[in-house]
Amino acid sequence: MAKRILETLHKRPVDRPPFWFMRQAGRYLPEYRQIRETAPNFLEFCYSPEKALEVTLQPLRRYRMDAAILFSDILVVPDALGQDVQFRQGEGPVLEPIRDAVGLDALDPAGIDKVLDPVIDAVGRISAALDDETALIGFAGAPWTVALYMVEGRGGTEGTEVRTWAARDPEGFQKLIDILCDATIRYLNRQVDAGAELLQLFDSWAGLLGEEQFMRWVVEPNRRIVEGVRAAHPDVPIIGFPRNAGVLYETFVRETGVDGVSLDHTVPLQWAADVLQPVCAVQGNLDNHMLLVGGEAMERAVMQILDVLGHGPFIFNLGHGILPPTPPENVGRVAELIRAGR
Amino acid sequence: MAKRILETLHKRPVDRPPFWFMRQAGRYLPEYRQIRETAPNFLEFCYSPEKALEVTLQPLRRYRMDAAILFSDILVVPDALGQDVQFRQGEGPVLEPIRDAVGLDALDPAGIDKVLDPVIDAVGRISAALDDETALIGFAGAPWTVALYMVEGRGGTEGTEVRTWAARDPEGFQKLIDILCDATIRYLNRQVDAGAELLQLFDSWAGLLGEEQFMRWVVEPNRRIVEGVRAAHPDVPIIGFPRNAGVLYETFVRETGVDGVSLDHTVPLQWAADVLQPVCAVQGNLDNHMLLVGGEAMERAVMQILDVLGHGPFIFNLGHGILPPTPPENVGRVAELIRAGR
Repeated sequence: MAKRILETLHKRPVDRPPFWFMRQAGRYLPEYRQIRETAPNFLEFCYSPEKALEVTLQPLRRYRMDAAILFSDILVVPDALGQDVQFRQGEGPVLEPIRDAVGLDALDPAGIDKVLDPVIDAVGRISAALDDETALIGFAGAPWTVALYMVEGRGGTEGTEVRTWAARDPEGFQKLIDILCDATIRYLNRQVDAGAELLQLFDSWAGLLGEEQFMRWVVEPNRRIVEGVRAAHPDVPIIGFPRNAGVLYETFVRETGVDGVSLDHTVPLQWAADVLQPVCAVQGNLDNHMLLVGGEAMERAVMQILDVLGHGPFIFNLGHGILPPTPPENVGRVAELIRAGR
Repeated sequence: MAKRILETLHKRPVDRPPFWFMRQAGRYLPEYRQIRETAPNFLEFCYSPEKALEVTLQPLRRYRMDAAILFSDILVVPDALGQDVQFRQGEGPVLEPIRDAVGLDALDPAGIDKVLDPVIDAVGRISAALDDETALIGFAGAPWTVALYMVEGRGGTEGTEVRTWAARDPEGFQKLIDILCDATIRYLNRQVDAGAELLQLFDSWAGLLGEEQFMRWVVEPNRRIVEGVRAAHPDVPIIGFPRNAGVLYETFVRETGVDGVSLDHTVPLQWAADVLQPVCAVQGNLDNHMLLVGGEAMERAVMQILDVLGHGPFIFNLGHGILPPTPPENVGRVAELIRAGR
């Protein structure tokens, strides 16, 4: 049969909603932690096609999601461009910050071809390993979000450095966004050439921006990337994820041309059904804390999402990635509920 | 003449929009830093009526805002209830976390009367010091936001502890919210008795919650507090601030009965004018990073806000507090633009 997630993104009917989970391959799985220990350096882990293949497949063996997502990280792009990127235990990623034109000049776009070969290799292996019901998702960070890490040197901030750069010197900052748009289009097209069947663009820090900045640094770069991928691959669906965009999710789906939009857990379901779903498929948006807690509260939340969003094109997912302390059996219970249908 | 901010909150016309800034008394002012140095302990500083009076008045001398806001902190409430609260340099507040019924039993509601006398004393002094054009704003944290600090032990987190407690054991967590509702009503009524003319409830972490949790932990407690203050002081306007509530701002203004709503900088202006302003006065929402950057970008942003929101009941403010590195002259320039009108 056709793959449910692709059918949904093309707005064709399916027997039940497809599902996958952000960070479905990750630390909540003991088998992931085991293989992760064999490669202390996280980027080397991402650049090992054998290991990336294995951890990508791990959650599918347990839960048979409708899609696999390439195991990688959005920060392979700045790494490939030549920025110093390090993952330190318990601290998250740390980058040597870029804050001016000199820093931009040092970036080398050719790295997208040279450095990321092992990732493209992994995409090919995963593609070959999947059965004919399971789709392969390729992904990248959207430019604003990747730029935030590149300028701040880390995530989890209010983004003061990157926001002041963008406000003080929009033309200078635009150059960084342009570099990232081009690199991302190139990188995503390579993923599709190697076997990715749909793509997700993660704009995790979109919610930091006011409307005018959101239009310029989120909507416009996402739109350009959609256009750049479509030019080479007209039929590959693209899901956008302007996390925490609030009211601006509507502008995002109308202006970028995405086939689907991933919603964080704060988006009210009925609003999403009324305002977003007529424009494109919606994906989401179980609170990852509900998956952590489990039990009756989680089950009620899952059923509510299925009830309200299940009448239009819909992919079940979380509002954000699976948290490391999540009990694996809760993930199994959600998969069961979705398969049972409403 | 009547005080502009009170007129606006009562939906009566004014000659120009009133304005004040969140954290208008604070570290961006050299005269604040000078007096702050004389009291190394931040809570002792808040509990010194003489000093609280002085720093409350400092920004008014420079910029003649339409309102003074009591200089204090939302965490005086947990401190008054008996929780250990400390402000450490460069680290923000640190609390001895409360995570169960035993922790709740140790809280003493009578502290709101005993411990907070110096704050009430400060309100009285400020009230006596203001001219007849300047209104006095009293404030408190809303229960969800104060609970987040009490349970996490600090801010700036994703709120995993408090969100899992609320999901796992809603009845137990409700007890903490109930304690905070009662304490906050009592505290705000004391502020009004001492001279506060309007109130703001800060729900800074409202944006972490999905719709169902938002209804229970944000909307319902804010509604109860509005009701509890109105019962004693029917004419005192109340501004709510469910920061980052996105689409849920609409539910908030419809269900809580607030007279005004403060908007973070991500709320689109036209949406606020169309959806929120018909229900109540709106306040906001200049990006505090624009105030940091200044210049033409800031001026354009200010004019845009005045243009779109200036046709209905509107109070100019920021979307969040003034950042410490903000040049004081930028604040002066914004005050000038507002006074000049559109």
